[in-house]
Amino acid sequence: MMQRHFDEELKALKDRLLSMAGMAEQSVGKAVKALVDRNPELAQTVIREDAAINRLEVEIEETCLNLMARYQPEAKDLRTIAMIFKIVNDLERVGDQAVNVSERTLDLLREPLLKPLIDIPKMAALAQQMLKDALDAFVNQDADLARGVCRRDDEVDHLNDQVYHELLVYMTQDAKTITRAIDLILVGRHLERVADHATNIAEDVYYLVKGTTIKHRLAGD
Amino acid sequence: MMQRHFDEELKALKDRLLSMAGMAEQSVGKAVKALVDRNPELAQTVIREDAAINRLEVEIEETCLNLMARYQPEAKDLRTIAMIFKIVNDLERVGDQAVNVSERTLDLLREPLLKPLIDIPKMAALAQQMLKDALDAFVNQDADLARGVCRRDDEVDHLNDQVYHELLVYMTQDAKTITRAIDLILVGRHLERVADHATNIAEDVYYLVKGTTIKHRLAGD
Repeated sequence: MMQRHFDEELKALKDRLLSMAGMAEQSVGKAVKALVDRNPELAQTVIREDAAINRLEVEIEETCLNLMARYQPEAKDLRTIAMIFKIVNDLERVGDQAVNVSERTLDLLREPLLKPLIDIPKMAALAQQMLKDALDAFVNQDADLARGVCRRDDEVDHLNDQVYHELLVYMTQDAKTITRAIDLILVGRHLERVADHATNIAEDVYYLVKGTTIKHRLAGD
Repeated sequence: MMQRHFDEELKALKDRLLSMAGMAEQSVGKAVKALVDRNPELAQTVIREDAAINRLEVEIEETCLNLMARYQPEAKDLRTIAMIFKIVNDLERVGDQAVNVSERTLDLLREPLLKPLIDIPKMAALAQQMLKDALDAFVNQDADLARGVCRRDDEVDHLNDQVYHELLVYMTQDAKTITRAIDLILVGRHLERVADHATNIAEDVYYLVKGTTIKHRLAGD
């Protein structure tokens, strides 16, 4: 009976985690769409909506502690709740990165378009999918999917290097492009960071499922 | 009897947390010293030593889960352990930022000094002190100290803006300075991020002590 109540509450908690993840992921999508479409209102929306993601983090953390205190779950269940506790932290920071991208966007929109954006939307799409897959891996306890997320981190890093080197050429040839180029370089880094958060989550999921850590190994150090 | 054992183990856990915090904080100090002294060996040392910080994160997380499972602590003790669980995550990322600074440093040392570094060591010293104070606030349950850390975050942000604008002038006047200026701008952002982690910790400490959240309020959103 006790266990059934716990299972139901844990299920509800996971659902809220997934809705928070959806919000964070969409926030990244909207932030990059605002940049590509040169839409300052959408960038403002992302900044404004971040408060809801922040509130969800606090609420979910509270629920985690509450579940632990009331049911004193053991082993696997305890690890699952601890994992949720960590994931919301990564998701909150993903939301912050979307805000950072939006702030760069508002700066960028004060000047004409520097160049058509190709790699940045690609990075965003990759990072968003990594985030989705990391959460799917958690919900379905899928170690292979988690490992796949970690591997894709290199692709995002590679695109980010490409963005950097391309913008360096612009800056070197024309000093008037410098502030815009730096803003775009920073956008690239913010998106790389989103992929890092997805990788953090996936590493922890792999650990949770396999009972062994790939952390700080797949991550490349 | 049970409670005494728990208290002893919690004390030991806090001590390990503090030694991890010391390592992370010193790692930032060494990274910036390597940059200022133009010492590539020291930068390499920071990169190499990060593995030890990463291992401590995994170990402390394990100990947290272990304590929760064995003693099923309630209310305040549970919150304290959950807090440690979060702090190690921030500290691990502080270590990553020190690695990032070191990587930028290794790039920077391939070219002559762009300019004497004034604000960057200042930012590092501020961020290191914020980190120390955040941990002190945790250990001594000092809400005022925690609040003070959050307030100082603005100073670091301000220095970072200053670094950025100064370097922008260099880049605009001489394209040959661009790669070095970008590397220094990124160093500034990595240090700003260290201060953000200290602020995260301090916000949570404030919350733990006061039982109310300043998070996402003092942070300015």
